[in-house]
Amino acid sequence: MLRYLTAGESHGKCLVAILDGIPAGLAVDKTLIDKDLARRMSGYGRGKRMKIESDKVEILSGLRRSKTIGSPVALLIDNVDQSINRLAVVSEPRPGHADLGGVLKYDLGDVRDVLERASARETASRVSVGAVCKMLLAEFAVKITSHVTCIGPVEAKTRQMGFDSIEAMAEKSSVRCADLKASRLMCVQIDKAAKEKDTLGGVFEVIVTGLPPGLGSYAQWDRRIDANLAKAVMSIQAVKAVSFGAGLGIAKRRGSDLHDEIFYHGSKGFYRKTNNAGGIEGGMTNGEDVVIQAVMKPIATLRKPLASVDIRTKRAVRATVERSDTCAVPAAGIVGEAMVAIEVANAMIEKFGGDSVKEMRRNYLGYIERIRRF
Amino acid sequence: MLRYLTAGESHGKCLVAILDGIPAGLAVDKTLIDKDLARRMSGYGRGKRMKIESDKVEILSGLRRSKTIGSPVALLIDNVDQSINRLAVVSEPRPGHADLGGVLKYDLGDVRDVLERASARETASRVSVGAVCKMLLAEFAVKITSHVTCIGPVEAKTRQMGFDSIEAMAEKSSVRCADLKASRLMCVQIDKAAKEKDTLGGVFEVIVTGLPPGLGSYAQWDRRIDANLAKAVMSIQAVKAVSFGAGLGIAKRRGSDLHDEIFYHGSKGFYRKTNNAGGIEGGMTNGEDVVIQAVMKPIATLRKPLASVDIRTKRAVRATVERSDTCAVPAAGIVGEAMVAIEVANAMIEKFGGDSVKEMRRNYLGYIERIRRF
Amino acid sequence: MLRYLTAGESHGKCLVAILDGIPAGLAVDKTLIDKDLARRMSGYGRGKRMKIESDKVEILSGLRRSKTIGSPVALLIDNVDQSINRLAVVSEPRPGHADLGGVLKYDLGDVRDVLERASARETASRVSVGAVCKMLLAEFAVKITSHVTCIGPVEAKTRQMGFDSIEAMAEKSSVRCADLKASRLMCVQIDKAAKEKDTLGGVFEVIVTGLPPGLGSYAQWDRRIDANLAKAVMSIQAVKAVSFGAGLGIAKRRGSDLHDEIFYHGSKGFYRKTNNAGGIEGGMTNGEDVVIQAVMKPIATLRKPLASVDIRTKRAVRATVERSDTCAVPAAGIVGEAMVAIEVANAMIEKFGGDSVKEMRRNYLGYIERIRRF
Amino acid sequence: MLRYLTAGESHGKCLVAILDGIPAGLAVDKTLIDKDLARRMSGYGRGKRMKIESDKVEILSGLRRSKTIGSPVALLIDNVDQSINRLAVVSEPRPGHADLGGVLKYDLGDVRDVLERASARETASRVSVGAVCKMLLAEFAVKITSHVTCIGPVEAKTRQMGFDSIEAMAEKSSVRCADLKASRLMCVQIDKAAKEKDTLGGVFEVIVTGLPPGLGSYAQWDRRIDANLAKAVMSIQAVKAVSFGAGLGIAKRRGSDLHDEIFYHGSKGFYRKTNNAGGIEGGMTNGEDVVIQAVMKPIATLRKPLASVDIRTKRAVRATVERSDTCAVPAAGIVGEAMVAIEVANAMIEKFGGDSVKEMRRNYLGYIERIRRF
Repeated sequence: MLRYLTAGESHGKCLVAILDGIPAGLAVDKTLIDKDLARRMSGYGRGKRMKIESDKVEILSGLRRSKTIGSPVALLIDNVDQSINRLAVVSEPRPGHADLGGVLKYDLGDVRDVLERASARETASRVSVGAVCKMLLAEFAVKITSHVTCIGPVEAKTRQMGFDSIEAMAEKSSVRCADLKASRLMCVQIDKAAKEKDTLGGVFEVIVTGLPPGLGSYAQWDRRIDANLAKAVMSIQAVKAVSFGAGLGIAKRRGSDLHDEIFYHGSKGFYRKTNNAGGIEGGMTNGEDVVIQAVMKPIATLRKPLASVDIRTKRAVRATVERSDTCAVPAAGIVGEAMVAIEVANAMIEKFGGDSVKEMRRNYLGYIERIRRF
Repeated sequence: MLRYLTAGESHGKCLVAILDGIPAGLAVDKTLIDKDLARRMSGYGRGKRMKIESDKVEILSGLRRSKTIGSPVALLIDNVDQSINRLAVVSEPRPGHADLGGVLKYDLGDVRDVLERASARETASRVSVGAVCKMLLAEFAVKITSHVTCIGPVEAKTRQMGFDSIEAMAEKSSVRCADLKASRLMCVQIDKAAKEKDTLGGVFEVIVTGLPPGLGSYAQWDRRIDANLAKAVMSIQAVKAVSFGAGLGIAKRRGSDLHDEIFYHGSKGFYRKTNNAGGIEGGMTNGEDVVIQAVMKPIATLRKPLASVDIRTKRAVRATVERSDTCAVPAAGIVGEAMVAIEVANAMIEKFGGDSVKEMRRNYLGYIERIRRF
Repeated sequence: MLRYLTAGESHGKCLVAILDGIPAGLAVDKTLIDKDLARRMSGYGRGKRMKIESDKVEILSGLRRSKTIGSPVALLIDNVDQSINRLAVVSEPRPGHADLGGVLKYDLGDVRDVLERASARETASRVSVGAVCKMLLAEFAVKITSHVTCIGPVEAKTRQMGFDSIEAMAEKSSVRCADLKASRLMCVQIDKAAKEKDTLGGVFEVIVTGLPPGLGSYAQWDRRIDANLAKAVMSIQAVKAVSFGAGLGIAKRRGSDLHDEIFYHGSKGFYRKTNNAGGIEGGMTNGEDVVIQAVMKPIATLRKPLASVDIRTKRAVRATVERSDTCAVPAAGIVGEAMVAIEVANAMIEKFGGDSVKEMRRNYLGYIERIRRF
Repeated sequence: MLRYLTAGESHGKCLVAILDGIPAGLAVDKTLIDKDLARRMSGYGRGKRMKIESDKVEILSGLRRSKTIGSPVALLIDNVDQSINRLAVVSEPRPGHADLGGVLKYDLGDVRDVLERASARETASRVSVGAVCKMLLAEFAVKITSHVTCIGPVEAKTRQMGFDSIEAMAEKSSVRCADLKASRLMCVQIDKAAKEKDTLGGVFEVIVTGLPPGLGSYAQWDRRIDANLAKAVMSIQAVKAVSFGAGLGIAKRRGSDLHDEIFYHGSKGFYRKTNNAGGIEGGMTNGEDVVIQAVMKPIATLRKPLASVDIRTKRAVRATVERSDTCAVPAAGIVGEAMVAIEVANAMIEKFGGDSVKEMRRNYLGYIERIRRF
């Protein structure tokens, strides 16, 4: 079983994560973690804070000579600005944030005590953990990418594109959108919103290719892989909706039109010609690409701040301005990749055992061979 | 901590659930469980199977003289048809179901071994567990309801309606839709689809009213209440998308327009005039109604069956016809109520302690008093 | 991952357990479960209650045609005496029982509300779950037995005996003691204590043979198999100490004398000539027999009752007399077998995957082959 | 719920721990953590390695201005010797260690990959986590200490001593033994063993005073506090047995002699005159001191090494000599304090809620008041 905890505040010393349960014998390339950390910080529409951040991971434990040895992997990312103890009291909670709920729940007198941890800065830890999981998945030729399918009023058209072209195109776009025309329009919208001191949300999609069928289970409610993926992705700050495959549109489609018919071919075994299910049926992967969409709300810290209340005086005020991104959907997609990678790696370890990559591979190949001859 | 496991197959002896962690001193009314079981079986668009089912719960343990005593509550629902061992081999997996993934994963030669457990029949157990949790929540004046907001092409208009009127109207509608006009149109669509041997999906919404702020936490990814609610609701058979509050539409809205501004009033404390967040900010309840939508795909068992492959011969066939509902969205909403009730009860127990209802109430009132004077 | 919950009270309708995560394709023999239930009820020194109990399991779910299909297994054991709602209020808590702590914790006014669940009657559920796990282990030639090594002042001498002879001899002894001479003396002591209306405790030992090395892990504190076994065995009612291998005596031995030296032989691989470690080093199995001792306190319900206090009046009284066994160490050993079987089965599933027995065996054999060639 | 993960190797960069779930508003005194780290390194019988270690904790996160704010606490302890990547291959596994099991399990070619994590060096992390939990417990006047009751053949006599005198005396003894005469004899035995290049084990006892009744539960096997404490303490490297209260001797005592009779006094409520149960009945605290003993085996790394086998050549060799303590029982006792503190803090948080110390205290006082008036 793969488990992890993250710690760290936005202006504390650092972010840390401990990942327990990663198999032994995995070569871990620090530069691949840093690459994902950089991808998380990029994206048109980010403010100044992103400019001063240049996250690099330090691997504190779990490796010997760049390979995992079965022990937990600890990952540390330094904060450039470590002023947490000096920062002034904040008493104007921001709508759309943890600010007000946090001070009430934890009985705190300073909104800063909340926002330091509730901030999406924390997702850098998740990205570092996810990057390690991606390396494990790569051993089984499982690949993960994300792309932005909507920002504000602009929607991308990518339905006919496969994994590889989406990945390649998204990586080229400054908003991680695989539809170049939409990509340009998204930037225009971001500029417009920025000028008006407003913010934008959108939709990102995570795609996983190369998965075997049978990860997850219908046997108990909490073992369904779609349920666990939904939890993982919904836990990303500002995500308000999660869907699979044909997703949000399926309410209006008929059964005869939607379900992915089953075919068989001597060399490739069972397969589908469509993937409206997003690779998951009955709480299990079905061997097709897993496709997950997440809807992200517009950033809740506005430069034209919303109405709020001073928690000390109870007088009406304007909410605090903490930072100033206009749109963070591309970045959230990278976090989405990480969260999905962790869940999928966990499901692989559960099915194939997780003591060493070699053992996992032996068990994996035994299963693949078995279902090929099914 | 509240935990539960369910067991049972569609044509086995019964369905069972064990719920561990329910506080002592809770009066449990069996008729309220049966009422929810009946609500789960109702709804325009259900087939014959529903007619022969008339689920009644038997409470096997956990009560003495109708009150909980701190020990686990076991709930049993008999199956009328217990023919599991006699039913014939099924070798044509149905697209959209666990059938194919299940036989591959568990190395089974008979699709029936899969569908017996993967079937939505299992949700009766969840509904019984949820009904107990609702009784606990009622002790804190927390109420839960569900209504159907979309079936096929028909969408309901309920945006201006409050909890009480939605609950009352949905209970009257044969499709649990609080918009009477839409309700009628939904029935028309169901008739039409039924006639064409097709199936329909839709959207249901679960609403929780009366919650205190501060349930859930931003401190660690897996403690966010929206993440846990998303998992719980996504784990319902056929649900493919979950959203909160303004939900799916938010991708297109601007920050200045979306976030729920904060106000304060001497007697009611902090409050909002809007609830686009669906009652959750920063992974915590904010004191407003929690509002969750779930998108359900059309039923995957069709009377004009889809293309499939015989798992023994590998020849192209038509998928098995196991049962024949046309639309199960209203029923799924009842399951949604249950899943949400369980998660919310768990969050209440975690925050206020869960040894006895009296202790929970004392702690709850201490907190409410505290945040009133915050 | 294997999980289970039990429910049920001593005088309620029944005991129930749900076991989630057992692999598909396991033949489950109900008579083997009943046999362990009977073994749990036997043993010299049991009182009248045991006579009227004749537990038989009913398998409610999880099987089709006597084989597991991947879905949870629910097990029910009926209570002969179902008088829970009619039984009178008990207000004299018994020292050594949950009685007093239970009413305080759960805010109850009747000790019966506590003792109904806290009673060792509940262990019948665990035995039924353990019996299923033993059948899984048998697929890997892993066997489990227990024997009594001490009752009151009498200690057995079994140090030179192997698994098979201990198992055979214990099964013949009315106190499950593999040393026949000690067995007779134990019965004498039980008679003596019974006559004096007193009770006796003792020590039982559980032995597991046939395990591969490498179950459990040192990588994180809570993954050590000795820690998990200690929890499982300490959770048995009345067990107050748990030890492994040379166990309690090791405090006085020197390192040079205690540790099990490592040898190698072409055909059997690495092996030991001694097993002071009880089959566990560094939180992992080492391939030798796992040997666990548990010290059980004398039964806390005495026929010459101890001093107590009426919880209503606060006046000094004598404790309630609920039942009248003199010694239950042999029975506790059977429960110990079950608890150990569950933990070991869980560790096997974690290491080798647990979707089907066939897949588990394939993965298991791959590992065994690997370490043979190490 | 309190959770934590540790990471780090003996000769890696550092040890790290993340503690999730600690309430907000707790003043954390770094010097108290360092004090426990120093106590862990002290004790007559430690070798040179201990001399060069002088562990100091760095608190990476979770505090603002020295108080917890609800977010996870990350704790780092630097290693002086960070040579993990340069250290030579070890191919002679040591009996009594994880060495052999570890290379087999994780498919490693170098015993060092195992011993780096399996080493008791890791317990420094646990001690740092435990020190934070002790500070939380101190808010409720719950205190924890440990003392050594046996080293090799020498047993201490402390039966008549109370918590305070045991704590004071143990702190003065170089082997943490509260019986001064035994303390001296223990040192003599350590010198003797050291001279003979041998090692010694022993017994330590952890005592917790000030606990309310009702922590833990009999309702489900895995919620019993004795089971959880047994797991926590058994997870300490080299611990082979765990017992409560009168512990190992109870097998030979009769029920009439052993159980702690119940009394009542107007001002102090229910109480006992004896504590043979070690403060736990029915899986719950009963309000008396919790008393746990742990038996530790002699250190498994000997300077006159045991027989082993070269894992590459399979030839008989002598085991590696990694370090050279003679006896580590006093240090293990400090780790025992930490493990017990964590479990007890967790049980307190579960019962009283854990969002803030203020809320916890309010709930705690409500309960104490309630049981006083019971």
